[in-house]
Amino acid sequence: MIKQRLFTPGPTDVPPEVLIEMAKPIFHHRTTRFKEMFAAVNDGLKKLLMTKNDVLTIAGSGTAGMEGAIACACPRDKKVLIAQGGKFAERWVKVAKTYGLQADEVKVEWGTAISPALVKEKLATGQYGAVVVVYSETSTATACDLQAIGAEVARTDAILISDCITAAGTLPLKTDEWGVDIVASGSQKAFMLPPGLAFLSVSPKAWALAEKITPPCLYLNLKAYRKSLADNDVPYTPAITLIRGLQVSLDMIHKIGVEKIWSRTAVLAKALREAMKAQGMAVFSKQPSDSVTGIMYPEGVEDKKFRNKIMRDKWGSSVAGGQDWLEGKMFRVSHMGYVDPIDTLGLVAAIEYAMVECGVKGIEIGKGLAVAAKIIKDWN
Amino acid sequence: MIKQRLFTPGPTDVPPEVLIEMAKPIFHHRTTRFKEMFAAVNDGLKKLLMTKNDVLTIAGSGTAGMEGAIACACPRDKKVLIAQGGKFAERWVKVAKTYGLQADEVKVEWGTAISPALVKEKLATGQYGAVVVVYSETSTATACDLQAIGAEVARTDAILISDCITAAGTLPLKTDEWGVDIVASGSQKAFMLPPGLAFLSVSPKAWALAEKITPPCLYLNLKAYRKSLADNDVPYTPAITLIRGLQVSLDMIHKIGVEKIWSRTAVLAKALREAMKAQGMAVFSKQPSDSVTGIMYPEGVEDKKFRNKIMRDKWGSSVAGGQDWLEGKMFRVSHMGYVDPIDTLGLVAAIEYAMVECGVKGIEIGKGLAVAAKIIKDWN
Repeated sequence: MIKQRLFTPGPTDVPPEVLIEMAKPIFHHRTTRFKEMFAAVNDGLKKLLMTKNDVLTIAGSGTAGMEGAIACACPRDKKVLIAQGGKFAERWVKVAKTYGLQADEVKVEWGTAISPALVKEKLATGQYGAVVVVYSETSTATACDLQAIGAEVARTDAILISDCITAAGTLPLKTDEWGVDIVASGSQKAFMLPPGLAFLSVSPKAWALAEKITPPCLYLNLKAYRKSLADNDVPYTPAITLIRGLQVSLDMIHKIGVEKIWSRTAVLAKALREAMKAQGMAVFSKQPSDSVTGIMYPEGVEDKKFRNKIMRDKWGSSVAGGQDWLEGKMFRVSHMGYVDPIDTLGLVAAIEYAMVECGVKGIEIGKGLAVAAKIIKDWN
Repeated sequence: MIKQRLFTPGPTDVPPEVLIEMAKPIFHHRTTRFKEMFAAVNDGLKKLLMTKNDVLTIAGSGTAGMEGAIACACPRDKKVLIAQGGKFAERWVKVAKTYGLQADEVKVEWGTAISPALVKEKLATGQYGAVVVVYSETSTATACDLQAIGAEVARTDAILISDCITAAGTLPLKTDEWGVDIVASGSQKAFMLPPGLAFLSVSPKAWALAEKITPPCLYLNLKAYRKSLADNDVPYTPAITLIRGLQVSLDMIHKIGVEKIWSRTAVLAKALREAMKAQGMAVFSKQPSDSVTGIMYPEGVEDKKFRNKIMRDKWGSSVAGGQDWLEGKMFRVSHMGYVDPIDTLGLVAAIEYAMVECGVKGIEIGKGLAVAAKIIKDWN
C-alpha cells in the first residue's frame, strides 16, 4: 500500500485529468476537430514559452527536436559553438558532427555553466553561425544564465539554439525578450505528459538561416512542420492522444500562470537543497538549476540500494542516479511539473529514512524535514 | 497544481489499480464469470474478517448492512442493548426503534467507550437478546474493547452485532475467535473502494436467531442473501463494478497481510496524535481509535476556513469536521485504506501550515513533522 511517486527528471508524474483525457477514444487527425485542437495547443505553447513564434510539435523525444534544430538551422559556412558541461551537451556535439557541422566545444567543469562573457568572446571571432547551450543541464542539475547569453548572441548574426528540455515551464524563460532563437523541449517534463512529443519554437532569424539550407533529413525537416502549421496541421501522423492530453495540461498550467509556476518551483528546489545541507549533504552543482537537484551521496551509500530498494520499494519515491562519472556518486530529483509542496516534504522524509538505513552518520530524522517545511510555508 | 488527498473517514482514496479495474467494460451478473468473481471475493472477505462465516455483500451503504442485521437477527422477545457514545450508535438506536425493538441505550460520555464490565453486568439481567456496539465510533474517533465485549456476550444466549464500518481492515478484528456474531462494514473505508457496498459476516448463532424471525423487510432480508450466496450469487442486482474493484483491492490487502495493515495503521495514527500533542493540540478521545483521529481545534480556529479554504484548497488535504455538538470544535482524519506514511507526514505539515495561518500561537512549523517522522521511521 505504498503509493508510487515519480521524482525522476523525466518522465514526471502525469495528473489524473490528463490521464483521463488520454484514455478517451481516439479520433482521426485529418479533421477539423484535430485542427481546432492543434490550434488551441499552439496558442498554449506560445504563451508558455512567451513567444510570438510558431511552436512546432513533433512526435518524438526532445532529442528529435534538438536534432531537427541543429540539422536544419545551423549555417554550413560557419562553425557551431557548443557549451559543454554535461551528458546532454555531449549529445548535441554528436548531432552536429553527424550532420558534418564543425562543432567547437567549449568545455566547462561539470556542475558549472558557460559564462555569458565567454560566449561573447568566442562570438567576437566571427567564426560562429550558431550557439548551442543547455539551459538546465539535467545530468549535472546545473543552469546557465540564458538571458545574458541570449543578449550576447542577439548582437551577432549567429542564432541561439537552447536545449530547454528540463527548463521550459520550470525555469524563467522569456523566449522573445531574451532572444532565444530556437527553444527545444519535451512533453515528459514540465508539460506533465508522458514522453512522445518534442516542441520547438523557431524565430524569424532562425527561419531565415533555415531557408538557405537544403534540409539534410525528412522527418525532422522543420520547414515541413512550419508549412503544415500554417493550416494548423502536421506533415506526418501526429501523436493525437498526447496532443489531446497536452491541451488539458496547458490549460492547467495557464490557470495557475507560468510565472507563478517558476516561482513555486524555485521554492521547492530551495527547500530540498536546504534540507539536504541541514543533514550535512552536499548539492553537486555550483549553479544549481531549480528544475532538477543533484545531491552527492555521503560516504558509504550504495546507489542501487538507496534508490531502488529503499527509496522506491520501501517509501514509494523514485529518484534518478548520476550519469557518466557521477554514476553511483549522486542522486537527482525533479521539481518539474506535477509535483507539489506536500510531495516535496514527503520526498525529504524518504531521503532521511533511506540515508539512515544506508548507515549514514549524523542524519537526524525530521531535521531536514523541518527546514524544508519552513521554506515551503510561503511557497505560493 | 495541488494534488488532492482524501483524509476524510470515508470515502477514502481509491488506488489506481482499483479505479482502472472499475473502468473496464461492464458484464452481466447472471453468468459463470460473475459467480467465479463473487466466490473469490467472498474468500477474500472471510480472510480479511478472520471468519469461517459467509460474508454477505449488499449493494448499499454500511447503514443498510447494520439495518439488515438489526432487523433480521435481533430476537423480538428480548431487548437490544445498544452502547451509545456517538452519532453512529444513535443511528442504530433509531433502526432498532423503527423495527419495534425495545432498545436499551447505555450512554457513555462521548470520547469514551462502554466497558466490558458494564456489558457483563447488563447481560446478567437476562433481558437482552442482542448487544449492538460500534467498534470504532467515527464521530468521536473512539474504539471500544471489542474482544473483551465479545467474550462477555459469548457466555450468554445473546448475539453481538458490531458496527465495524471504520474498523474492519484497520483495527485488529478476529471475528470468530472474539465471538463477534455479526460484523458490518462498508466499501468506502479500509476496503479502498468507492461507497456502495455493505458487508456482513453472520455467525451460526445469529443465523439460528434469524431463523425464528419473519423478516420485516425484503431488500435487507439477510436470509435471501445467504440462500443466494450458497450458489455464489446474489438475490438482487449486484453492484458489479464495485465487486470487480473489490477483487483487486482484496488482493492488494492480502498481499500485504491483514495483521501487517493493522500494525501499520496504528503507527500512522500514533504519529499524527503525537505530532499534534507536540504542537500543543489535544486528541479528543480518551480511548482513541487508530482508524480515525479527532483533534480539538485550538482557540480561535474557524472550522470551514481551516478545512476548506486552507487544508483542502491550499494544501490539497481534505479532512472531516466534528459532528453534532463537536461541529466546529474538532477535525477528524482517517488512517484507513489507501494512505501511506508519506501521506501522513504531508498531512501533518498541512495541519501545521493551516494552524499558523489560522493564527494559532505556539505552532512551530516542522516540530510536529519531526515527531511524526521519528515514529513513522519503523512503520513497517
